[in-house]
Amino acid sequence: MSVTDDLLANAENYAAAFDKGDLPLPPGKKVAVVACMDARLNVYGLLGLSEGDSHVIRNAGGVVTADVRRSLAISQRLLGTQEVVLIHHTDCGMLTFTDDDFKASIQAETGIKPDWAAEAFGDPDDDVRQSVARIKADPFIPRTGHVRGFVYEVETGRLREVKS
Amino acid sequence: MSVTDDLLANAENYAAAFDKGDLPLPPGKKVAVVACMDARLNVYGLLGLSEGDSHVIRNAGGVVTADVRRSLAISQRLLGTQEVVLIHHTDCGMLTFTDDDFKASIQAETGIKPDWAAEAFGDPDDDVRQSVARIKADPFIPRTGHVRGFVYEVETGRLREVKS
Repeated sequence: MSVTDDLLANAENYAAAFDKGDLPLPPGKKVAVVACMDARLNVYGLLGLSEGDSHVIRNAGGVVTADVRRSLAISQRLLGTQEVVLIHHTDCGMLTFTDDDFKASIQAETGIKPDWAAEAFGDPDDDVRQSVARIKADPFIPRTGHVRGFVYEVETGRLREVKS
Repeated sequence: MSVTDDLLANAENYAAAFDKGDLPLPPGKKVAVVACMDARLNVYGLLGLSEGDSHVIRNAGGVVTADVRRSLAISQRLLGTQEVVLIHHTDCGMLTFTDDDFKASIQAETGIKPDWAAEAFGDPDDDVRQSVARIKADPFIPRTGHVRGFVYEVETGRLREVKS
């Protein structure tokens, strides 16, 4: 039995109790959340989201990459979201390395240098501001008037707003 | 009051009841979930995840893009995950357009053609296979022996495995 098999058993229980089969495709709260992939950051629990409420976009760091901007363009243009909630967090893995060192270690092992930026950062507040700025500067995201950035504190469970 | 303000009130309640301040950074179940951003797909609820269990990576479609591969490289190399659970779903927004039409509509409005692939697809099962293949072909993701793909049925709540 793998961990995946355990999760599939949980999914069978979820289906057995499922009663939300008629929810529409567009998010009911017209919001998209962009957050780090970190295991301790339970976006549904933290924000009190239910099925159907919000798009949830996550990657390593919660950094606004081209893929996040693609996802936000689709979210706003095709599915009607109007607000963005951006969440980084304390004790993030992205604080533990540098792009140069990480990519050099991969090159040393595989012989190939990654053709992407690893997007490590030194301060979560600063990187929230950087990520908000990237959203506001994107020419393909139409609604940037309600973009707010936060740092989630994994030690306390608190969500703290980052002032621009 | 914006929707974001409502979600912040929920976050205050979460913090008030929070008792998980000592969880470690690496995911306890050593798994990374890659899923679509769709609002109806509650990854924590579906898979029975709790805080600390699993990385969660999400974008428009749950498509394996360069940013997802970056996130998986960080997840496996720096934070010890060993399995990948990939989830697309029925009634996906990515089934409702083509890359060419979407990008042409953006160009018509903004004067600029997006420099990214929108990653629309015609069949979720086929795109799960495509996404699994992209993970297995990536030279920077070290552990590809436990990568399994699924389609979540938004109508029934069921998670169906896609055979390769």
